[in-house]
Amino acid sequence: MTERIGRLAIIGVGLIGGSLARALRHARKVDEIVGCGRGKANLDEAVALGVIDRYTHDIAEAVDGADVVFLAVPLGAMRDAFEAMRDRLPTTALVTDGGSAKGSVVDDCREVAPELLSRFIPGHPIAGTEKNGVAASFAELYQNRRVILTPLPENMSADVARIRQMWEACGAEVTEMPVAHHDEVLAATSHLPHMLAFGLVDMLARMKENDEIFRYAAGGFRDFTRIASSNPVMWRDICVANRGALGPMLSAFAAELDLLAERIHAADGDALLEVFERAKAARDRYVDGIR
Amino acid sequence: MTERIGRLAIIGVGLIGGSLARALRHARKVDEIVGCGRGKANLDEAVALGVIDRYTHDIAEAVDGADVVFLAVPLGAMRDAFEAMRDRLPTTALVTDGGSAKGSVVDDCREVAPELLSRFIPGHPIAGTEKNGVAASFAELYQNRRVILTPLPENMSADVARIRQMWEACGAEVTEMPVAHHDEVLAATSHLPHMLAFGLVDMLARMKENDEIFRYAAGGFRDFTRIASSNPVMWRDICVANRGALGPMLSAFAAELDLLAERIHAADGDALLEVFERAKAARDRYVDGIR
Repeated sequence: MTERIGRLAIIGVGLIGGSLARALRHARKVDEIVGCGRGKANLDEAVALGVIDRYTHDIAEAVDGADVVFLAVPLGAMRDAFEAMRDRLPTTALVTDGGSAKGSVVDDCREVAPELLSRFIPGHPIAGTEKNGVAASFAELYQNRRVILTPLPENMSADVARIRQMWEACGAEVTEMPVAHHDEVLAATSHLPHMLAFGLVDMLARMKENDEIFRYAAGGFRDFTRIASSNPVMWRDICVANRGALGPMLSAFAAELDLLAERIHAADGDALLEVFERAKAARDRYVDGIR
Repeated sequence: MTERIGRLAIIGVGLIGGSLARALRHARKVDEIVGCGRGKANLDEAVALGVIDRYTHDIAEAVDGADVVFLAVPLGAMRDAFEAMRDRLPTTALVTDGGSAKGSVVDDCREVAPELLSRFIPGHPIAGTEKNGVAASFAELYQNRRVILTPLPENMSADVARIRQMWEACGAEVTEMPVAHHDEVLAATSHLPHMLAFGLVDMLARMKENDEIFRYAAGGFRDFTRIASSNPVMWRDICVANRGALGPMLSAFAAELDLLAERIHAADGDALLEVFERAKAARDRYVDGIR
């Protein structure tokens, strides 16, 4: 943002929150950063690393006097965070978040702190690694990454622009879309693949002689299942939060697989070839350019 | 192998066949290598690269006088290859192959050339890249990779040992298992994941606004779908060849996904967490060590 942020409150100082703090500090776009979280050791480390200036375990205290509040807590903890901050958030402060689903966070805000809705600009940085904690955070995480903002009808466009500029200062490419559309797109490109990877590894792990089965897995399997090493608690929260978009999509995909199984059973080579060729063409065309 | 191979016939001089030729030559375990294939340009390149000594387009001619024949043709071309060689294969020659499914190749041999069955030692090197053609072949492809042999009741153990030694000379780690067991293990660890990747990319490609959907796919999606860039014709052949093991496994997985979708719909966080934790534990334990 052209203007600096006087005081930034980061609620949840892990990879996502810590990297935003580092990036804004590196860009000299923030004066003071207050961290908030549960784990003392992680917060002490955040101070030692210079990611935050000071911390508190109390959300109300953390947002007191803040200009911008960034919510980087698990989706399952968003509601309590809105509730905890509602009485102490300055009337001039903006709130944004980094949750992987947007509808549920907006609902949380609407239900427990409706008066904050006009100043809450929901966001989702499409970035991350398999690592957690502030020690894994780095200033370049958002460089050339997409950040999706899903502004609400209640938001003022000047406020949306401030949050956009904050992310642009971190090197991100910011786009906007409606909440429901975000949740559909992410269900398709992120949440559904995670279900397939978790589901596959789980099924194989429950097979007899699973030791032996994994022994013969090759490099393709390692790449394919990498996302099954993601944080189970985070993914439970995402599934529950985005169940409206993800549930039907997963059912639809199960039906696709049933059809594919029928074609395999019938040795219908032409139909199989059509599916594989269409998939390869789409992957080669769209995905190889992904950073 | 302790003994050298006098003449090796490679039927299908691509990544798999070409790399075996290079590795054996590098290990000084072969005197002469005859290539066989359809494409003149590829075979000329194979000669120019020193991968093979000479070539023919005729399988019967290629196996004439051979000590070992390696079948590296697509699974859908195995039957014709057995038929073409049956009258000219020397009675002392051994035949082995590199097909990703084993039951279908054994059936092909049994049906069109049953007299060769005792000298056919089926095999499957678990190695490969997304590239095709002899230009992509290299002598180290099988170094520290697993090769599964699935000896037949008709085989003599001395012949199985010769083929084992051939692969060990290439640096491979050779294991043996029954044909049906191989096809189950590979269905689980390779064929099923390919169906999920092909199926997912195909479903997304058929969605409205698929351009936009792929635009928001992140790094995890790229890894997850890498195998959807594999050769569609090869995978059609694998699906048809291994339909007995793959079809039921794909149906079973579709049922798993339906159950997962139900749990998501019901917001059953505890059940979801159990699946994700079991999967993460198995992946972290078994898969991270895969080369």
